[in-house]
Amino acid sequence: MTDFTPKDPDFKDRVVENFALQTLMKTLGAQLVDIQPGKCEIVMAKRDDLCQQHGFLHAGITTTLADTAAGYAAFSLMPKGAEVLSTEFKINLLNPAEGKRFSARAEVLKPGRTLTVVRSDVWAEDETGQQTMIATMLASMICLLPR
Amino acid sequence: MTDFTPKDPDFKDRVVENFALQTLMKTLGAQLVDIQPGKCEIVMAKRDDLCQQHGFLHAGITTTLADTAAGYAAFSLMPKGAEVLSTEFKINLLNPAEGKRFSARAEVLKPGRTLTVVRSDVWAEDETGQQTMIATMLASMICLLPR
Amino acid sequence: MTDFTPKDPDFKDRVVENFALQTLMKTLGAQLVDIQPGKCEIVMAKRDDLCQQHGFLHAGITTTLADTAAGYAAFSLMPKGAEVLSTEFKINLLNPAEGKRFSARAEVLKPGRTLTVVRSDVWAEDETGQQTMIATMLASMICLLPR
Amino acid sequence: MTDFTPKDPDFKDRVVENFALQTLMKTLGAQLVDIQPGKCEIVMAKRDDLCQQHGFLHAGITTTLADTAAGYAAFSLMPKGAEVLSTEFKINLLNPAEGKRFSARAEVLKPGRTLTVVRSDVWAEDETGQQTMIATMLASMICLLPR
Repeated sequence: MTDFTPKDPDFKDRVVENFALQTLMKTLGAQLVDIQPGKCEIVMAKRDDLCQQHGFLHAGITTTLADTAAGYAAFSLMPKGAEVLSTEFKINLLNPAEGKRFSARAEVLKPGRTLTVVRSDVWAEDETGQQTMIATMLASMICLLPR
Repeated sequence: MTDFTPKDPDFKDRVVENFALQTLMKTLGAQLVDIQPGKCEIVMAKRDDLCQQHGFLHAGITTTLADTAAGYAAFSLMPKGAEVLSTEFKINLLNPAEGKRFSARAEVLKPGRTLTVVRSDVWAEDETGQQTMIATMLASMICLLPR
Repeated sequence: MTDFTPKDPDFKDRVVENFALQTLMKTLGAQLVDIQPGKCEIVMAKRDDLCQQHGFLHAGITTTLADTAAGYAAFSLMPKGAEVLSTEFKINLLNPAEGKRFSARAEVLKPGRTLTVVRSDVWAEDETGQQTMIATMLASMICLLPR
Repeated sequence: MTDFTPKDPDFKDRVVENFALQTLMKTLGAQLVDIQPGKCEIVMAKRDDLCQQHGFLHAGITTTLADTAAGYAAFSLMPKGAEVLSTEFKINLLNPAEGKRFSARAEVLKPGRTLTVVRSDVWAEDETGQQTMIATMLASMICLLPR
């Protein structure tokens, strides 16, 4: 939608380091596969121990992927020394979360000094490589700077 | 807020059985501790492998607890044979998710033949037993009946 | 995003008739300017009697436009005889609602037999014709059929 | 839920003055009927020119009332000189917006230096005085201070 100029030229390193601090990402086996100014993609393989009652990926895990990608899409545009936190998000679940691999792709809609609004969609990929959008999120990320 | 009359007198058994099918709940060590008509509580101990970058519980896990409690609060009022799915939810994160134990407490605001709207709050409990509300969710749950 | 096939070939007439029943649209001077399968655009001129405390368009009116466009985007794909109602929506306000003309553009993300999920963005146009996105909405629309 | 101490002892005057600046409130015939620290109520009589296609109050107007009450509930706790803006909100529409009078009642859930989270419910009152909750909103309000 828009090209964003990062305030910190080392934003990629900063995102990679920060992602490595999230113990949940390791627990889920989630990986950061792309980070660009205002954009982020995170992928995770299907796992049978992360499901809801029908054997689909639990909506909470779909949300976790979307939220994390949204956070780093926002974080990529924040200045060095900033911290990022989710203040709120809303997700619509569009299709059953079935597939062998899930991918959350986030894109900043509006960067801000304090709040950054991000859209984050989650896609499921089946055995044949076909992808279906299973969820869409709107999230607000806050930038916290040391005072 | 309101007293609800369950359509299925065996709603508790149905919820307990359904909860046991959610492999994610076992993975998280989450437990169903209360189920009443239109109400549900789920608790989970803090775990270091479910955190975000500051060592707080990841917002995705806070959301998972809130969503699951909301789903069963709605499911408790649905007829025998029904399936429940989250169609959407929105969560505001109010305070850092720090504590030794987390509790999601959901309450139906409006039951419906098709859609049930649920509020679900998440509380953190510290070492001294003091509780702080860390998040509040509004969720829509859909009732699917075999045709 | 997707091409949608309307179930009712007379969907345009149905939308136009339905829009004319919304007395609020007349009160606001809002106009239906485009209706396609799964898409809708509504425009309104700036008015000084619809503002918040800083003289910008009130967020409630921005929301009204977004919601109405979302409703008709969904309605365009519903069968003859259906009624449409908003069940919930979430809006992020991205920029000050200043301009001489506002346009809400909605697009169905996922049509469904019961629920249809719609994205609806609101744009402000200034004196020079430049457009700025001021808000983005995710909405759930329900299809009600006579039983 | 909580008792809040206002930072500005003249918060009521400040809210009343600010409300009077919202031209939309005059256009709708909406009135500020109660303002307490962290709480606000706004009422409006049913009007036939603010309806959707079934003759119910338009969801956009229900939202306008909820948003405005939420904004002033937050504003009541902000320091002198602050400005308040809605950054986002989500509303679930629970029951048809029919009645002779509508009332939005907002309550701060979490005040913050920058963001304040507010719950705002809308009630419809019928001819007999009976009230029904027709909508519930979660909103984020931002505090802007002159730099």
